[in-house]
Amino acid sequence: MSKVSVIGAGSWGTALAILLEKNGHEVTLWSHREEEAKELAKSREHKSKLPGVQIPERIEITGNLESALQAKDVLVFAVPSVAVRSTAKKVAPYVKKGQLIVNVAKGIEETTLMTLTDIIEEEIPGAKGCVLSGPSHAEEVSRGLPTTCVVGAKDKETAEFLQNVFMSPVFRVYISPDILGIELGGALKNVIALAAGTADGLGYGDNTKAALITRGITEIARLGIAMGAKADTFYGLSGIGDLIVTCASKHSRNRKAGYLMGQGRSMQQAMDEVNMVVEGVYSAKAGLALSQKYKVEMPIIEQVNKVLFEGKAPAAAVKELMVRDKKIESWDSTWTME
Amino acid sequence: MSKVSVIGAGSWGTALAILLEKNGHEVTLWSHREEEAKELAKSREHKSKLPGVQIPERIEITGNLESALQAKDVLVFAVPSVAVRSTAKKVAPYVKKGQLIVNVAKGIEETTLMTLTDIIEEEIPGAKGCVLSGPSHAEEVSRGLPTTCVVGAKDKETAEFLQNVFMSPVFRVYISPDILGIELGGALKNVIALAAGTADGLGYGDNTKAALITRGITEIARLGIAMGAKADTFYGLSGIGDLIVTCASKHSRNRKAGYLMGQGRSMQQAMDEVNMVVEGVYSAKAGLALSQKYKVEMPIIEQVNKVLFEGKAPAAAVKELMVRDKKIESWDSTWTME
Repeated sequence: MSKVSVIGAGSWGTALAILLEKNGHEVTLWSHREEEAKELAKSREHKSKLPGVQIPERIEITGNLESALQAKDVLVFAVPSVAVRSTAKKVAPYVKKGQLIVNVAKGIEETTLMTLTDIIEEEIPGAKGCVLSGPSHAEEVSRGLPTTCVVGAKDKETAEFLQNVFMSPVFRVYISPDILGIELGGALKNVIALAAGTADGLGYGDNTKAALITRGITEIARLGIAMGAKADTFYGLSGIGDLIVTCASKHSRNRKAGYLMGQGRSMQQAMDEVNMVVEGVYSAKAGLALSQKYKVEMPIIEQVNKVLFEGKAPAAAVKELMVRDKKIESWDSTWTME
Repeated sequence: MSKVSVIGAGSWGTALAILLEKNGHEVTLWSHREEEAKELAKSREHKSKLPGVQIPERIEITGNLESALQAKDVLVFAVPSVAVRSTAKKVAPYVKKGQLIVNVAKGIEETTLMTLTDIIEEEIPGAKGCVLSGPSHAEEVSRGLPTTCVVGAKDKETAEFLQNVFMSPVFRVYISPDILGIELGGALKNVIALAAGTADGLGYGDNTKAALITRGITEIARLGIAMGAKADTFYGLSGIGDLIVTCASKHSRNRKAGYLMGQGRSMQQAMDEVNMVVEGVYSAKAGLALSQKYKVEMPIIEQVNKVLFEGKAPAAAVKELMVRDKKIESWDSTWTME
């Protein structure tokens, strides 16, 4: 049994707190809004984010950050990606050297192109940044539906420790040393989900969507390898697995924003209609910047940027993806008989 | 412009004949039933398989195999997988040495564990067996919706020739040297689709399905690598791409049969209700035999076999997949700091 604090009481943070409590840990859930913490502690239900799901009494819910951070074995960072740096700054003064911190948010910082675990380790010197990711709708996890994830950590002992912390009969956890690959896949999948949604909005079929998903993860993997990540990671749960869930989901904001653009709305109209942060819009810029920095061809992410920021018609973007140079499928293919 | 015969007038053969004709080729479409050939030639519509899609007048439709095989640059084999060997035997006497034959069926012969291109080359000595595969519902291709596929051939010149034959502004073709990997992915995806359908039938969510798809392609890739195929192929259009389309499709017989079993039907009841050949049932046996022959762990395919042939309850199979040994995600992961 471990002492775990979940920093951030959104749908994912709350679902993970419930999972961890069921696994027998002593769990604290921190909300950045004092009044939300009070309301959750009283009603034991996150009415807006996880309606109908009961939050066990044994989970301590607080709005006091300092008390949430006292003597914890593990901190789970479950804040929106744009809030990771500011939250890490606030957390820094209160944690011990070597503090285990598991990031479960997905994103790349637009200005620095840093991953979220790198930001955590920069802001909290001496902390050990890890990551948990995979195809995991929070509402399904909170309802106990079978789910798989992967934990990334720099050393195997830490990875195995976290595997034991999170794993349950309905939550299977694999481990991996490739934190960078896990973070990149999670961040850039939202851009491909925008593209897949756009294809849906244009009235294209399952063939087109499967093509965008498959070629999408191929170009993300190509970037990741250039950055030092491992190919296998992108073809695992945090890469293709999470991408599949996002592109299939009717609830994904990214897919929905894409759908609306495919139906003819501008980016701004689509964002207004979705009325929530569409992370893929920011990740699209970061993805393009990374592809230029590492000189990697990323045709889908390039076209998404043109549609988003240069007013290109979605149908023209798809057409361009279909008719560009004739290619070999895998960039390291060799014909043995040549 | 090439002379192409499509051998087999099912939905996929017919859709490809239409695509090839639009690409400017001289196309013959052969049906194994003389009366079907006559009916198609007259009505110019495949009413049962591709309703509403017009078959251009310029496509020659025939039930005469010998005439369909005269002086063709390319033969496209579009017969059901179980009919590949018998059809190849019939074709053998009429084709020239070095005849290009593109297999577009998906399966592994249960008794010999051979791939379909290998069967074609065995039955038609001197023929050059190639393969076309990918996420490609026939009805979507026949309606001109953007689709991508991959052509596999032993030499690059042949692959590039076929890429030019099939490629169009709505049908993008990649090339690959890995015929074996393309064939294996196409055959074994149906087993994973059975599993994914079963999960749907059990009422599980998108997380579970994405897990089955992702871990499913991982175990297929592991087998393929042991057999000499390339990992990249399984993470490409003919592997994960085709698997995504099959598991998403409401029309897939394999997914539907799985769904019915998840809902409590026996295999036989599910097969009766689907009332068509459920290829995954046969591929499941072949997959298990291959995993034993090559000593590769394939936990999902193993559990599918137990559900299909040993009466195991689907929920118990899922549970066993979730709680088995704690694993590293990628079998060649290394922790650099160990």
